[in-house]
Amino acid sequence: MASLKLYYDLMSQPSRSLFILLKHYNIPFQPVLTSIGKGENTTEEFRKISKFQKLPAVEDNGFPMTESIAILRYLARTQNLPESFYPKDAKEQFKVDEYLEWQHQNIRYFLSMYFFTKWLIPNRFKKPPNERAIASAEQQMIDCLNGFETVWLAKGPFLTGNDITAADLWAACEIEQPRICGYDPREGRPALKAWIERVKKNFNPTYDKAHGPLYKVEQMSKK
Amino acid sequence: MASLKLYYDLMSQPSRSLFILLKHYNIPFQPVLTSIGKGENTTEEFRKISKFQKLPAVEDNGFPMTESIAILRYLARTQNLPESFYPKDAKEQFKVDEYLEWQHQNIRYFLSMYFFTKWLIPNRFKKPPNERAIASAEQQMIDCLNGFETVWLAKGPFLTGNDITAADLWAACEIEQPRICGYDPREGRPALKAWIERVKKNFNPTYDKAHGPLYKVEQMSKK
Repeated sequence: MASLKLYYDLMSQPSRSLFILLKHYNIPFQPVLTSIGKGENTTEEFRKISKFQKLPAVEDNGFPMTESIAILRYLARTQNLPESFYPKDAKEQFKVDEYLEWQHQNIRYFLSMYFFTKWLIPNRFKKPPNERAIASAEQQMIDCLNGFETVWLAKGPFLTGNDITAADLWAACEIEQPRICGYDPREGRPALKAWIERVKKNFNPTYDKAHGPLYKVEQMSKK
Repeated sequence: MASLKLYYDLMSQPSRSLFILLKHYNIPFQPVLTSIGKGENTTEEFRKISKFQKLPAVEDNGFPMTESIAILRYLARTQNLPESFYPKDAKEQFKVDEYLEWQHQNIRYFLSMYFFTKWLIPNRFKKPPNERAIASAEQQMIDCLNGFETVWLAKGPFLTGNDITAADLWAACEIEQPRICGYDPREGRPALKAWIERVKKNFNPTYDKAHGPLYKVEQMSKK
């Protein structure tokens, strides 16, 4: 039996990042589908694994872990990941870390806010959409994506240069999210579109498998 | 001449964390005071060092770095820091990383939002205070601090157990911030108060030196 257990929901961006990482690099793990929609993450039982009842979470032989980026670093130390994906060299590792720290209050924050305001609050919590809040969240998301394209994608084919790294995977899984609510970050951003195609190609077929539920909601919302 | 250059402003929480780390562990560096109030971080010259013109920033022999937590990890790999402050053991390092990733959208976000809404917007941008926004930001900050005390401080004298780590230093520098605008997180939270005293004692006299400008503004606002 694999020592690693992944608690995940493919509608959650960092859940997809960890799911893709584990599958793509053939790290054995027990997948434990934990539906946010059904509230399976809100039980007291789950609090023992994830103290704030957030997904994704991982257990390694019973050692509980939350925060996907901290888990990624743990996996880089304990599993056989390619050197290029999360480098050991001080400066190269720094470049990946710099993006992963930056994204929390930028790509992760602004794209999630748009998704919450436009999709999650009206759809899951059945509250009427607040059009003013949606417009404001959309503008902040657009500014953030434009900054991402002009600054982070100016360095080369991938976020930190010539190699695909954990920064690219975490970024792509966030940037796919607003497609659920009718906003496609690839449109009007040719550099971003070409980059996301490179990331997808590298991680396929797992990338499309992980994004399957998201593509399905996107298609349904277009009908 | 020291190879490290620190661009900082002691009114910025992560600037203080890096300043204390470098001073306390006797890592030689050139301090470059960069006043946010005077806009010294908004020049095109500074963009070469910090692509989004944010503080703190570090250069190591001309290699530019932003994001304090990524810089901390770089320093742990390249400088002589105590093993206990940023552990090398996979699980122990994970515990520190888990807090440092969690804090971005929790302690860092909610305490900064309160500081922006209550102090920075009225004082620096000379806009009338929005009392409804301040009340909402204050409640979110209180909920976050209560969660910090009951969950993170339940493990032992420090955030990850018995030793003081980078997680404690980064957390304390954030938690001091709202004192500028009349809210003292230590009041009514005995476990948090005792913990912050332990952190301060460990890093003094540097801790109080780094927080000097903050204590001064706190005193002025009480008059």
